[in-house]
Amino acid sequence: MNRSMIRYILGCVVQIEGALLLLPCIVALIYQEREGIYYCIVAGAALLIGAIISHNKPKEQVIYLKEGCVTTALSWIMLSIVGCVPFILTGEIPAFADALFETISGFTTTGASILNDVEALSHCSLFWRSFTHWIGGMGVLVFLLAIIPLSGGSNINLMRAESPGPSVGKLVPKVKHTARILYAIYIGLTVLEIILLIAGSMPLFDVFCTAFGTAGTGGFGIKNDSFAGYSPYLQWVVAIFMILFGVNFNMYYFLLFRNVKKAFNMEEVRGYFIIIAAAVGVIFVDLCGTAVNAATALRDAVFQVASIITTTGFSSVDFNLWSQQCKVILVLLMFVGACAGSTGGGIKVSRFQVLLKTVGKELDSYIHPKSIKKIKMDGKPIEHEVVRAINVYFITFMILFASSVFLISFEGKDLVTNFTAVAATINNIGPGLEMVGPTSNFSVFGTFSKYVLMFDMIAGRLELFPLLILFYPPLWRDMLLKKTLKRKKLQ
Amino acid sequence: MNRSMIRYILGCVVQIEGALLLLPCIVALIYQEREGIYYCIVAGAALLIGAIISHNKPKEQVIYLKEGCVTTALSWIMLSIVGCVPFILTGEIPAFADALFETISGFTTTGASILNDVEALSHCSLFWRSFTHWIGGMGVLVFLLAIIPLSGGSNINLMRAESPGPSVGKLVPKVKHTARILYAIYIGLTVLEIILLIAGSMPLFDVFCTAFGTAGTGGFGIKNDSFAGYSPYLQWVVAIFMILFGVNFNMYYFLLFRNVKKAFNMEEVRGYFIIIAAAVGVIFVDLCGTAVNAATALRDAVFQVASIITTTGFSSVDFNLWSQQCKVILVLLMFVGACAGSTGGGIKVSRFQVLLKTVGKELDSYIHPKSIKKIKMDGKPIEHEVVRAINVYFITFMILFASSVFLISFEGKDLVTNFTAVAATINNIGPGLEMVGPTSNFSVFGTFSKYVLMFDMIAGRLELFPLLILFYPPLWRDMLLKKTLKRKKLQ
Repeated sequence: MNRSMIRYILGCVVQIEGALLLLPCIVALIYQEREGIYYCIVAGAALLIGAIISHNKPKEQVIYLKEGCVTTALSWIMLSIVGCVPFILTGEIPAFADALFETISGFTTTGASILNDVEALSHCSLFWRSFTHWIGGMGVLVFLLAIIPLSGGSNINLMRAESPGPSVGKLVPKVKHTARILYAIYIGLTVLEIILLIAGSMPLFDVFCTAFGTAGTGGFGIKNDSFAGYSPYLQWVVAIFMILFGVNFNMYYFLLFRNVKKAFNMEEVRGYFIIIAAAVGVIFVDLCGTAVNAATALRDAVFQVASIITTTGFSSVDFNLWSQQCKVILVLLMFVGACAGSTGGGIKVSRFQVLLKTVGKELDSYIHPKSIKKIKMDGKPIEHEVVRAINVYFITFMILFASSVFLISFEGKDLVTNFTAVAATINNIGPGLEMVGPTSNFSVFGTFSKYVLMFDMIAGRLELFPLLILFYPPLWRDMLLKKTLKRKKLQ
Repeated sequence: MNRSMIRYILGCVVQIEGALLLLPCIVALIYQEREGIYYCIVAGAALLIGAIISHNKPKEQVIYLKEGCVTTALSWIMLSIVGCVPFILTGEIPAFADALFETISGFTTTGASILNDVEALSHCSLFWRSFTHWIGGMGVLVFLLAIIPLSGGSNINLMRAESPGPSVGKLVPKVKHTARILYAIYIGLTVLEIILLIAGSMPLFDVFCTAFGTAGTGGFGIKNDSFAGYSPYLQWVVAIFMILFGVNFNMYYFLLFRNVKKAFNMEEVRGYFIIIAAAVGVIFVDLCGTAVNAATALRDAVFQVASIITTTGFSSVDFNLWSQQCKVILVLLMFVGACAGSTGGGIKVSRFQVLLKTVGKELDSYIHPKSIKKIKMDGKPIEHEVVRAINVYFITFMILFASSVFLISFEGKDLVTNFTAVAATINNIGPGLEMVGPTSNFSVFGTFSKYVLMFDMIAGRLELFPLLILFYPPLWRDMLLKKTLKRKKLQ
């Protein structure tokens, strides 16, 4: 284990966070809020500590998959711990577990809140809360890779651990350039949304917070009623941008470089739009049956489907009051999630496509036992190893899911609350149903359950294994063993 | 496709069912019930039709996996259709969908009922209902294999399609002998239970029905309150026998042939008992916190855990009223199920053990990327192909599960009802929670949902693929293609 390299990267991450914490300071200056002082203190401390930790760059810079995972998991935990300090210092979220929950929910782009009254927060805290979505959406290590020169081809291991999706496509041969292109697309789309929201005469502060939430597919609202109070135009803009941020970013890359055919032939993106259309269709018909007029029904259906499938979690309506059938559709969409290579969470459309094809292949094997056809995506055969990894991912996901539901069930809440609370956190969505529905929040849970859900949020964002490995005893047993062996050799 | 062989086997199956239908006739004679006439008519008709269908034994007797699956699926559908006719004729369950639901629930050893008042049924119908459990528990094709000489080693394909578990172990080289040994153990255990129940002075009729239900891990009660009315002794006997019938039958085989070490080293059986002990422990502690005394709490905990994990479905208490945490445990146990090679349903303990080891192996691969350790069970490495099949099984199961919940959600019932109704049928348990809890039944569902749940029951009993393949278009496309080619060649 290359521990000095892990230390170095963690230092860099803390420094970056320190720098980013200066933004809420500026917001505090504009609104002349006293809370800004605390943000300044934390920013300064983070910059200083980060600089000390990452003082000397290690010579041995190679990072293997194992170190990549550990670094990523530790970075996200560290990010969240540092990021929650201002909430505690300002007294706006006094309890550590609550502040940490809110911050993890922010960075992992979940958007599940423990706040009963969001509007009581200061502007700088609201800004920081939404900004964590934007940072977490694309990933802080991807950012690091874009700006810091790391030698060796092994930095792909960092990116692989942080990026969502079954296989990390390097768009261009160099990881650094891939990271830069991704961030360029991310910033470009965010700016476009900001312009369109301003055009709809949304207040400037709301514009930024909303854009950050949409871009990261986060879901923290700055109003107690989330999006219900905004104009239809603004709801449409946000709905469309949620869908756009859920698309595999590779498509934008292909579009940018005029490879239109390749862009529109992406099976995952097509599947994603087909699922959205189908879900909107059913819910729209169902909502039309109620008192709502057709225009509102369509808007609500599109907004809510987009919000759930992209795992954003904004709400324009209390879908907890919708029919059972609509609720089942939303719960199923929670698991599907957005495209791989987007900022969205969930299991991802492409994984489900591969899973479905795996089932089809199994049935084929009953008919033609000797066939050795490979599963294809985008017309190209996928390696067995990738298929296997996706299968294992799904299994691990389900086991973690069931264990989490079991652990939080000790509080005695109803099954639907427990089930959807875990679904909403592990898939990085935000609101669930019943006691954690869009009009309520996660403050109903006790401290132990909150930690379980925090674990799920990070596990979901990092796609399970980077976090799980941190809690896997053989990793530490191996490390201790090697240390002892080294010491014995020296003697 | 060897269609004449499929026809022949189906004919035999109908004949066997005709013979078995004579038993309720005898019961009707004893209790002098008019309904017995209908059972005689159906029995006669089945014997006659079966004899006609299977008149000439085909020369070409080889059955491939594909034919094995199709034959098994068609046999079970046929069994159920013939078996439901007496219910309709006697007028006790007049609607076809209801009668079919009840019969499928019987043969698949589910035990989910659509009857509001079980006690209103005639004795012969109650007997037939419980007897279907006993037939379905070990499987009718396994029975066929035990008595009919089928040439070629390919009859293992029939057994593989019907027997529960990831890999069919031939206990002895000949399939026929394996089938006979399994039936001998099955009958032996059933007789033992009958003796112990009689010793507890249970009425003789109740003894038989109860023993059939326990042996097949079925769960049809003959009282409206299922088991709540019986003495503690009888509840203990049934609880213990439910657990015994959930054990992998290979263990009994090893015990019989004095291979005690091998019997107690079976990882699956150990896992099964550990899960039972853990679940009973938690529920016992929880129940002790309520008004119940310790003896009752222990009995209820053991009875209910045994009933759910073995997928029997008897109830000694309305567990729908238990705490949320106990209910979550029961729901999780529904999916775990009993051991492979037992009469129980569910995903099976050994599959879960392999799934957990798969996750462990994945985590190991992050630490030692070049390791090629194989997953082991009972100390022996398992083939990759078996692991892969288990993974695909789990995935297919979850997809079928989610689709079924979606399909029955159109009725507008609550999530917990929909979720547990599918869980209780696809795992062949019987009662779920809320509207399908132990004191209610499945008559609350509409016809369409009933058919979905019937599909789930058969799919669950036959372990998915044999039934799914019957509805898989390429199978029929292939057959049509071959037919056309043949015709063209002849011209």
